[in-house]
Amino acid sequence: MLSRIDLLTLFPKMAEGFLTESILGRASAHGLLSINIHNLRDWSTDKHHRVDDRPFGGGAGMLLMPEPLFAAIEEIRTPETTTIYLCPDGEPLSTPLARELSEKPHLLLISGHYEGVDQRVRDALVDREISIGDYVLTNGTLPAAVLIDCVARQVPGVLGEEKSLTQDSFNDNFLTFPQFTRPAEFRGMKVPEVLLSGDHAAIERWREEERRRQTRLRRPDLNP
Amino acid sequence: MLSRIDLLTLFPKMAEGFLTESILGRASAHGLLSINIHNLRDWSTDKHHRVDDRPFGGGAGMLLMPEPLFAAIEEIRTPETTTIYLCPDGEPLSTPLARELSEKPHLLLISGHYEGVDQRVRDALVDREISIGDYVLTNGTLPAAVLIDCVARQVPGVLGEEKSLTQDSFNDNFLTFPQFTRPAEFRGMKVPEVLLSGDHAAIERWREEERRRQTRLRRPDLNP
Repeated sequence: MLSRIDLLTLFPKMAEGFLTESILGRASAHGLLSINIHNLRDWSTDKHHRVDDRPFGGGAGMLLMPEPLFAAIEEIRTPETTTIYLCPDGEPLSTPLARELSEKPHLLLISGHYEGVDQRVRDALVDREISIGDYVLTNGTLPAAVLIDCVARQVPGVLGEEKSLTQDSFNDNFLTFPQFTRPAEFRGMKVPEVLLSGDHAAIERWREEERRRQTRLRRPDLNP
Repeated sequence: MLSRIDLLTLFPKMAEGFLTESILGRASAHGLLSINIHNLRDWSTDKHHRVDDRPFGGGAGMLLMPEPLFAAIEEIRTPETTTIYLCPDGEPLSTPLARELSEKPHLLLISGHYEGVDQRVRDALVDREISIGDYVLTNGTLPAAVLIDCVARQVPGVLGEEKSLTQDSFNDNFLTFPQFTRPAEFRGMKVPEVLLSGDHAAIERWREEERRRQTRLRRPDLNP
């Protein structure tokens, strides 16, 4: 079961706001999950604290150099660690993958910056390469935060109400159903009758039908 | 061209750290893009500042109520606004979609929390529903930050070196190529000869071949 996550980034403050404000702050305070953020620059051996350099072969942008990353990863990891590099060309993040990662004892997340990291880091030190979606971002700290949130909520106790996991979109490859709360009528728009009926079997049936309908309508690729 | 983004959330501090630390802080400072974060609770009419209530029909979790969201959205939007709700059952975010959104003048992003928002908000006020990936998170503020980062980097001037966009993964449906920086040899691992050759045509050829090879190997679904 996951008990520790380390994040290696050039922008620790970017991740801190998210971690203290979210449900993860509570998980951390309750001792369910220890989350530690490290500044990659602390492993620079350069007197100017440089961690990046231009790519061989030319091209725009900068790359993270091998030395600081090797030093940092080798210091933080243990034999139990799964080292993950967040990158657009990685394996797509999904609910089953998040569930799998929530069963590992320790995750070390490497956040890329600029044009990414030197390929030798990926070849020699990284166990899994994961993408949060088919698009590119300015750096890997947000994707790391997304992965932490997604994986942490699979850890028992992190979400207050365990039941909410089974209603999620992508459970059984279906999207979720429409939800309504008070008032029952707002500006002439009414909540579907069945939800006010108190007939729990009918409500379950309606929700199951809606999951199928929404999935067919919006994401037929999920259940071809 | 995009010049303004508003974000409506229950966790403004979660987004602030990210926005000030990233490349977007610079974009904002240079007047390229104005990004404004609003606390949904400011539109609560309840004396306890409540914005959520239990779902009709039962089930775990809480939903954002219609009143505060209607009030906030109607106050912030203009006839030029595209109102976007971040949710797992939305249209998947992609590079072409980010490019399309970067051409709108004003985006208003609605971040869901708990089990999401009352369906009437989605039906009556939302222009686009967007998902950052096939997984579920504890709230929509991180996905909103991901969308902001992804869209903002398509706005001319936000990235320092424009050229880096064309090398991105997913440009032409191919992944990117491996990159290397100094030292040319590290712990016995050498940079591919061609990248040190100075032969720019050969380098281009190698990179193009690698883009195809990596895509075939890792994401055959991108180019079937």
